[in-house]
Amino acid sequence: MNNAPLPTWNDGAAKSAIVDFVTRVTNESGPDFVPVPERIATFDNDGTLWCEQPMQVQVFFAQDRLKALAVQDPNMAERQPFKAFLEHDLKAIHDLGRQAVFEFAFATHAGVTEEAFDKIARVWLASAMHPRFGRLFKRCTYQPQLELLDYLGQHGFKTFIVSGGGIDFIRAFAFEAYGIPREQVIGSSVKTRPEERDGRMTLMRLAELNSFDDREVKVQNVSLHIGRRPILAFGNSDGDLAMLRYTLSGPGARLALLIHHDDADREVAYDREFRLSPLVEALDKADEYGITLVSMKQDWNRVFAAGDIIDTPKP
Amino acid sequence: MNNAPLPTWNDGAAKSAIVDFVTRVTNESGPDFVPVPERIATFDNDGTLWCEQPMQVQVFFAQDRLKALAVQDPNMAERQPFKAFLEHDLKAIHDLGRQAVFEFAFATHAGVTEEAFDKIARVWLASAMHPRFGRLFKRCTYQPQLELLDYLGQHGFKTFIVSGGGIDFIRAFAFEAYGIPREQVIGSSVKTRPEERDGRMTLMRLAELNSFDDREVKVQNVSLHIGRRPILAFGNSDGDLAMLRYTLSGPGARLALLIHHDDADREVAYDREFRLSPLVEALDKADEYGITLVSMKQDWNRVFAAGDIIDTPKP
Repeated sequence: MNNAPLPTWNDGAAKSAIVDFVTRVTNESGPDFVPVPERIATFDNDGTLWCEQPMQVQVFFAQDRLKALAVQDPNMAERQPFKAFLEHDLKAIHDLGRQAVFEFAFATHAGVTEEAFDKIARVWLASAMHPRFGRLFKRCTYQPQLELLDYLGQHGFKTFIVSGGGIDFIRAFAFEAYGIPREQVIGSSVKTRPEERDGRMTLMRLAELNSFDDREVKVQNVSLHIGRRPILAFGNSDGDLAMLRYTLSGPGARLALLIHHDDADREVAYDREFRLSPLVEALDKADEYGITLVSMKQDWNRVFAAGDIIDTPKP
Repeated sequence: MNNAPLPTWNDGAAKSAIVDFVTRVTNESGPDFVPVPERIATFDNDGTLWCEQPMQVQVFFAQDRLKALAVQDPNMAERQPFKAFLEHDLKAIHDLGRQAVFEFAFATHAGVTEEAFDKIARVWLASAMHPRFGRLFKRCTYQPQLELLDYLGQHGFKTFIVSGGGIDFIRAFAFEAYGIPREQVIGSSVKTRPEERDGRMTLMRLAELNSFDDREVKVQNVSLHIGRRPILAFGNSDGDLAMLRYTLSGPGARLALLIHHDDADREVAYDREFRLSPLVEALDKADEYGITLVSMKQDWNRVFAAGDIIDTPKP
């Protein structure tokens, strides 16, 4: 096998499935050839392209926002769910469940314009550190996935992020972190309200959810934003299962991948019990549905991207 | 002036505004330079890129669908609004108003999968003729706009359609007609429901509106789908005014254009009275808002695109 592409992917079934798939769909004289405009690949973000433990990065972002807001409203610290976030009570946060936590996180940035939000997110991301890995959150991206995105791009794929996280939060770093432009990011969104300020038209973010981009909604949003069924999809949780199955349900060559976080030494080992992003059904039925399992421990010889290690990783 | 670009645009204020704008934003050493990823241009479709008279093409499409459905339900012909469409009663159709007509049109294709809809639309577009212009609907595109899309593409712009028409209907012909890929089409959409058929996951179109992409909603959808404020926008009705103003409200060089259908000889002259796409406020306030008016009669030396003239135009 040619080891030149995907150097941080170990030889094995997962890497072979990827290289074989890309080779087949780009072989013009082969039966599985796919024209360039149809080479659409979709990636979940949290837990698939970057770390989502001990909670999703956007929840850390919301927590810091809440701390700032609590300065103006000291009573906040006594009320739930504010108390749980202000005290970084992980058990209480996890117990709230996935959608409630995300909705709460999005709501902490209501009442700012889209441009102001983008700036707030960039400023935060420029210095916010992961509490354990000794690196900026925006460098908690996975090196093997950066290589995969690059490899796909070199082979005529257009790659999209399809995330339960906030679409605007991801847009604030996706190009820098992954080379993915803003218009190729799909995610959860809040409703917005057009407002006129000094004769200029601007969009104000509201606290109300527009779309929680999870499970079947990922399929609906892929259809809405892209208008094509992807030929490759990559996820890590039950929230991605519908997108993986939708991808596999099209005609011709298809590839769906699921990363299993089984690497307690280099990252975190988790699946069924992680309430903010459970992996149960997708793991149990991967074989039945033809989803390729990727073991972080076995398939990746490196986890995090290079650069910007600021502190020593903590155990 | 260099007449090489935009040959079917007559020399004049509109053409100068376009060429001057593109020259400035692409001049790396100038004060108005815009990096390639930020060169986003948005175009309305009906009446801006192709003909919308005597009613929008998608309404003709819905009318033909209705005729097929009426064969199975003869009583339909006696009930409104079916009667108006089945009898092609333009006055009654126009009186229904813009959103009602579009919603009705979208609903005629409920209950089919997204793939089936795409096929139905392609089959219809392959042979459906405009009743007056002696050409296929899909060739009722405007030659000067095809040249403009091409000119912008050559200068690093990414062009999007932002239409009140159905997103999936436009996707069925946008690449062939305009060179615009499916993922760069934004439009009105219906809700969808994921369904499993023979173990395959598919999306069923419902009769319920998800988003009517008109007026302020165009701004919200541009933000949702693209995540960037366009630097150039082109429309032809009050339904586009918010998008034009949103475009002009950003920092740096901006250009907003409004086509005025004032050419009864070559196309149709209409503005205030056309209830399916009225042009009132945008026309009255174009000057105040800094919107460049384009006169079809004065600024275009040709209207329709070349090719596929099948019949003699009717008066």
